[in-house]
Amino acid sequence: MSEQITAAMIVIGDEILSGRTKDLNIGHLAEIMTAIGIDLKEVRIVSDDESAIVDAVNALRGAYTYVFTTGGIGPTHDDITAEAVSRAFGLPCPYDERAYATLEAYYAKRGIEFTEARKRMARMPQGAEHIDNPISLAPGFRIENVHVMAGVPAIFQAMLDNVVPTLKTGAKLLSDNVHCPHGEGVIGDRLAAIQKEHPDTIIGSYPKYRDGSFWTELVIRARDAEKLSAAKEAIETMVTELAGAKGP
Amino acid sequence: MSEQITAAMIVIGDEILSGRTKDLNIGHLAEIMTAIGIDLKEVRIVSDDESAIVDAVNALRGAYTYVFTTGGIGPTHDDITAEAVSRAFGLPCPYDERAYATLEAYYAKRGIEFTEARKRMARMPQGAEHIDNPISLAPGFRIENVHVMAGVPAIFQAMLDNVVPTLKTGAKLLSDNVHCPHGEGVIGDRLAAIQKEHPDTIIGSYPKYRDGSFWTELVIRARDAEKLSAAKEAIETMVTELAGAKGP
Repeated sequence: MSEQITAAMIVIGDEILSGRTKDLNIGHLAEIMTAIGIDLKEVRIVSDDESAIVDAVNALRGAYTYVFTTGGIGPTHDDITAEAVSRAFGLPCPYDERAYATLEAYYAKRGIEFTEARKRMARMPQGAEHIDNPISLAPGFRIENVHVMAGVPAIFQAMLDNVVPTLKTGAKLLSDNVHCPHGEGVIGDRLAAIQKEHPDTIIGSYPKYRDGSFWTELVIRARDAEKLSAAKEAIETMVTELAGAKGP
Repeated sequence: MSEQITAAMIVIGDEILSGRTKDLNIGHLAEIMTAIGIDLKEVRIVSDDESAIVDAVNALRGAYTYVFTTGGIGPTHDDITAEAVSRAFGLPCPYDERAYATLEAYYAKRGIEFTEARKRMARMPQGAEHIDNPISLAPGFRIENVHVMAGVPAIFQAMLDNVVPTLKTGAKLLSDNVHCPHGEGVIGDRLAAIQKEHPDTIIGSYPKYRDGSFWTELVIRARDAEKLSAAKEAIETMVTELAGAKGP
């Protein structure tokens, strides 16, 4: 069996915790990780607070193969991700020469003042590598296994596209699903038995409720295509045999 | 100044981490907490793994006034939240008599078998209080400061409606916002100065990017209405004075 590659995500920003902005990046990262065979194991949403960010980075970077952060790398006073990540690694957070020069040239060309606030976007932990930002130029960065990216979804997605080819990816997790017209109560016992009989698969049961009726989306995941089909077949048999069953 | 009431949320479920299901509960809880003056400080999304749930519950229940969990309380084998929360508190996880009787009667009345799987929904840590579920009956529960609720959004929202009146709520955080047609780079320096001049407010800057242009949503939060208006006025003056400025 190939090495399991794992990941965690840190979403940084008071605006998500206040409910003012709805996060769109978690779902996107999750889909991309699944597609390339990396197991996203944990997500933490933390506030724009240096200690909270440092603690999350240090808790997760040792526990998982990769850590991805979004948010807090813009030019305003509440953008403290670069300092916080530097502190987590015990590194200084100077202006990165290349980022500084790039931004300086960018603003000069447009006749825009290169203010102290804008200069902040050139800071990163000493020795970090850039993650290119094709949209607004100010780069994200990678330091060891931690990838620091923007919170604005369009920029985050563009940065992630640049990161993905640099990741070692696991054996891809295959998945298939079965629409089950029964509620979880109907299928619970038999589904548990099927999971037991198919130990190399992960069977997820996602209860749905709409307009007064219950149904279930069953998702089977496995690294092996034959084991996946065998489990799927067992589940489809179960669904057929339970036709007419009632209840949530 | 009144006591600050804080909260953390634990979202439990492999389906969120795989990207298959997009979470809708974080944004809802965040909005409700903000509305009633409780500061949501942290959210963790963890997989259907007992140790991961136990660790998150124990890390957060000591750090914040309240903890809210969603997911993993249905009848299938991957619904392990009740055991995990019991283990976090060092409590047994028996069938709760009243929940068991309620569910038994509910299924009997409908001529539906009360299977082992369905009985699982009656388990909770010894001594927990019910959180009523008006939609599908199986209750959530509260043990000390941890509130365990369903992951299906309609049920989660109904359960949360039952929990809110039981919470001590903080002084409500007032908020106001200013639409700023400039990117963060334009306003960063002056906004930092305004934040310094208005220490009893929290000024958040949320960069937006759409169709090639940058703008910023500025949100001011304060417990005091006068301080809020003073900061808002300073920001509006800044926005006006910067008219014509360019750049991201």
